[in-house]
Amino acid sequence: MTDPGTVRPGGRTAQVRESVLRTVGDMVADRGFDALELPVVAERAGVGKTTLYRRWGSASALVSDLLVEMAASSRPRADTGSLRGDLTANAALVVDTLGDARQGRLFRAMFAAAATDPTTAESLATFYAVRVTEWAPCVDDAIMRGEAPAGTDAHEVIRAVSAPLYYRFLTTPTPPDGADADRAVAVVLAAVAAGAFTA
Amino acid sequence: MTDPGTVRPGGRTAQVRESVLRTVGDMVADRGFDALELPVVAERAGVGKTTLYRRWGSASALVSDLLVEMAASSRPRADTGSLRGDLTANAALVVDTLGDARQGRLFRAMFAAAATDPTTAESLATFYAVRVTEWAPCVDDAIMRGEAPAGTDAHEVIRAVSAPLYYRFLTTPTPPDGADADRAVAVVLAAVAAGAFTA
Repeated sequence: MTDPGTVRPGGRTAQVRESVLRTVGDMVADRGFDALELPVVAERAGVGKTTLYRRWGSASALVSDLLVEMAASSRPRADTGSLRGDLTANAALVVDTLGDARQGRLFRAMFAAAATDPTTAESLATFYAVRVTEWAPCVDDAIMRGEAPAGTDAHEVIRAVSAPLYYRFLTTPTPPDGADADRAVAVVLAAVAAGAFTA
Repeated sequence: MTDPGTVRPGGRTAQVRESVLRTVGDMVADRGFDALELPVVAERAGVGKTTLYRRWGSASALVSDLLVEMAASSRPRADTGSLRGDLTANAALVVDTLGDARQGRLFRAMFAAAATDPTTAESLATFYAVRVTEWAPCVDDAIMRGEAPAGTDAHEVIRAVSAPLYYRFLTTPTPPDGADADRAVAVVLAAVAAGAFTA
């Protein structure tokens, strides 16, 4: 990740990164991680090969930086005032992401790359950890409001909303839809109320 | 799938299939789908190339047949007399499978292959459909016993037990463990009791 102390937002360095990461996302979504050749990335992104090699150096590093950028720019946590509202927003985000043609292919390709490339596996794990940490306060707020029992594991609740949507994405021919999102939220809310997420 | 009417169990045809599919599983687990070259499979399995090409013909067909075999030979549904017992057995099966080094690598490789190979994606979807159908009667039996509300969607209940375990497998560096299995079962049981799985 670039050092924010030395990079002016919107400056040349930021523009190069934006162009490179957009190209990387397009290429991985279209043809998978294995097709990610650095000279092709440089040409398509319109940046010098030297810059690309010096700054990223490998396909794994490019994908890792793309995941850092995706985690940073992904939708922030909802704050609707109710746990149901917040989890519904979270489920909608996951359904939108996996149901989007480009994003869906991109995530499939990243899971595929993670199966053989340890750096990608680690970056993908970090991506999910960052996203879960972003949304976990929805559950902590619900505990404060008395909507969830004290001791409810906020991270596990957020993971439990995503899990059935990813499972459907990976094990059936059709991506998850609104009905799947509604069921995921209903299941998690019932389990939260019953104390199934307390240690 | 071979026609059971023409193949004597344990006969030469069955032995060839067993040897080929064991080799395919080893090769995919070790080096991934892309390394699955038919001449190498033939040599390692000790079968003729002609047989291999005539009977399977492609890497996708080999993996599809492996998934058919895995679905057929996987652990049958539990019948412990309680929904909690049956779902606990199901969660344990998933944790055992994903936590096993060879099987874990094999499933990662199949998901990776499914990202680019439509035949593998379809075979993987069939594998999960077969497995869910095998275990769904645990929920139907629970409805009959009065342990679950009428109209509970048995397939969705079974999927909901697996989902958080697969999600952990794919998005964190460590495979799911017994604590994850217990939480998955507790969450699903609470949601079943609350009617979250009725249409």
